[in-house]
Amino acid sequence: MDTNEKLSVLKWISQEYYELNGTRYETMDRLPSSLEFSKIVRVASPIPDATKSWSDDFLISRSGTRPISIAVTPNGRADAVTGGLDGLEYFAEPHTEQITMENFLSKISSGARDAHPEICYLQSQNGNVFSSDGSQESEFEAFKSQIPEDLPWCSEALDSTPDAVNLWIGDQRSVTSIHSDPYENIYTVVRGSKTFTLLPPTEGWCLAERTYPHAQYKRTEPYSRLTLVPSQGTAPIRWSSVADPNLPGALNAEAHPMEITVGPGESLYLPAGWWHYVRQSGVTIAVNYWYDLESRGSSWVWLNLLRGSAEPPSSTGALTAEDSS
Amino acid sequence: MDTNEKLSVLKWISQEYYELNGTRYETMDRLPSSLEFSKIVRVASPIPDATKSWSDDFLISRSGTRPISIAVTPNGRADAVTGGLDGLEYFAEPHTEQITMENFLSKISSGARDAHPEICYLQSQNGNVFSSDGSQESEFEAFKSQIPEDLPWCSEALDSTPDAVNLWIGDQRSVTSIHSDPYENIYTVVRGSKTFTLLPPTEGWCLAERTYPHAQYKRTEPYSRLTLVPSQGTAPIRWSSVADPNLPGALNAEAHPMEITVGPGESLYLPAGWWHYVRQSGVTIAVNYWYDLESRGSSWVWLNLLRGSAEPPSSTGALTAEDSS
Repeated sequence: MDTNEKLSVLKWISQEYYELNGTRYETMDRLPSSLEFSKIVRVASPIPDATKSWSDDFLISRSGTRPISIAVTPNGRADAVTGGLDGLEYFAEPHTEQITMENFLSKISSGARDAHPEICYLQSQNGNVFSSDGSQESEFEAFKSQIPEDLPWCSEALDSTPDAVNLWIGDQRSVTSIHSDPYENIYTVVRGSKTFTLLPPTEGWCLAERTYPHAQYKRTEPYSRLTLVPSQGTAPIRWSSVADPNLPGALNAEAHPMEITVGPGESLYLPAGWWHYVRQSGVTIAVNYWYDLESRGSSWVWLNLLRGSAEPPSSTGALTAEDSS
Repeated sequence: MDTNEKLSVLKWISQEYYELNGTRYETMDRLPSSLEFSKIVRVASPIPDATKSWSDDFLISRSGTRPISIAVTPNGRADAVTGGLDGLEYFAEPHTEQITMENFLSKISSGARDAHPEICYLQSQNGNVFSSDGSQESEFEAFKSQIPEDLPWCSEALDSTPDAVNLWIGDQRSVTSIHSDPYENIYTVVRGSKTFTLLPPTEGWCLAERTYPHAQYKRTEPYSRLTLVPSQGTAPIRWSSVADPNLPGALNAEAHPMEITVGPGESLYLPAGWWHYVRQSGVTIAVNYWYDLESRGSSWVWLNLLRGSAEPPSSTGALTAEDSS
């Protein structure tokens, strides 16, 4: 079966999905019960939903001199397709630096931005607050009393505890390139706001995934400028070639993107497999909860099929259910 | 895209599904809560689960002289592929007769079977006890106080009430040919037992669906033998060409059938789209609850895709979500 034939299956699926679902999403003015959330997960369409604002003073006094891992890029595009010095396109990972919260916040505060051409984003996303394996000490131990370890209404509905709970802090110069994760995701904004451009799993074929060699931003000397260095021995990365889905003509005309802005005290349920591109407004703080996708039933098969546009479905590029054999 | 190419997509899906799910099913020794059932529906794998036995005397005294609609066939295969007098194969619907419960039970009681070569089955399945439109009077008004109008744990989980509640009475001479329904189905056995041969929706391609002209058993005179009469102006029916999936070689070697026997006081959750072939042991009485399949999300698209083995997915042969536009 060649690419055109697979594409015709995927187009059929996305048209049928769109005819049934449109670009509908629901808004709730309170947290759902476990039963309500279980039904929401079954339908798997996004739902936006609070917490008190976290001031710079609060963040600094809690963190003290503890170093925290910050992603640094020249352009605010960590984990994104970027042109290298050789003219080729790479999947670029950020440089990571350990600095104090105070230092980090000085680089993203509104007054200081022009003085810092490099763009910093706290986005370590390795379960930086809580992780299911519990083996690593959190860089944010001092914040654990402020962040619930799990969301009972979600854990009860999904019959599991979060695989990872992450703290995210950045400003409007950082964007997250469009991608999808094999996780059920609850994304709560504490301060600022995040705007999600969303596409359902059925429209992955509109995102023109390609395979890119891996590279990482590095400094050749301690204070030198960041350089994108191709990685040796790292497998190429399959990623969408659409840099910004909001630019005119960037997306296939058959795509139906949705835009949802999540403000302070609101949460977004981002179902597993949904494609998301994320922008921020001012200094934005968020906490997200990743829960493993249900391994039973047909969820994995469905998402793997839908990612089969650029590669055969069984290739290494497709999602794999690592531990559900 | 030709049939072989579609088949390769469907084979890939069924292999992936089987690798993740095997032929696992769960047994519960009590009814689930709404939350538990909501999670079960999400995974959509079958679950067997009571009620007191209904004696012939009870049935007859409740029904009195009220006529009830009984399906009559010469071979116990109502709604099944059957050879006609002209040597062609037809999708054969049963003849329907209105007789009293006492008369009906006399035809299926163990002592009288040899004297009645025709095989009777109470299987009107039109919401014969309760139906959501409520327009028709039930032939089983007298049994309504014995049969719950809905199952609260199921209705709450699915956010709906049953589309149809049906009473089924027959003996081991009646079988139900293998098919799937676009309904979530709770099947409770009251007396006797039913044995279900089940295949997941992903293995529909193993069932070799074909299109058959429609026919119905009729009597040319009031007491004459039944004759299979081709229907005029009725659209052909798409149906599996596998007459009995339990016969050696009847199923594709890549199919993974499961067998579940449901005894008195037990219920089976038969998820929407699961293929089922049903046999009975002795006089068997059951009540089933059909709930509409969730119209939001990707369930319809998924089941339509999986039925696309013999026809293009968008043909009239595929399932259609009638009222969910």
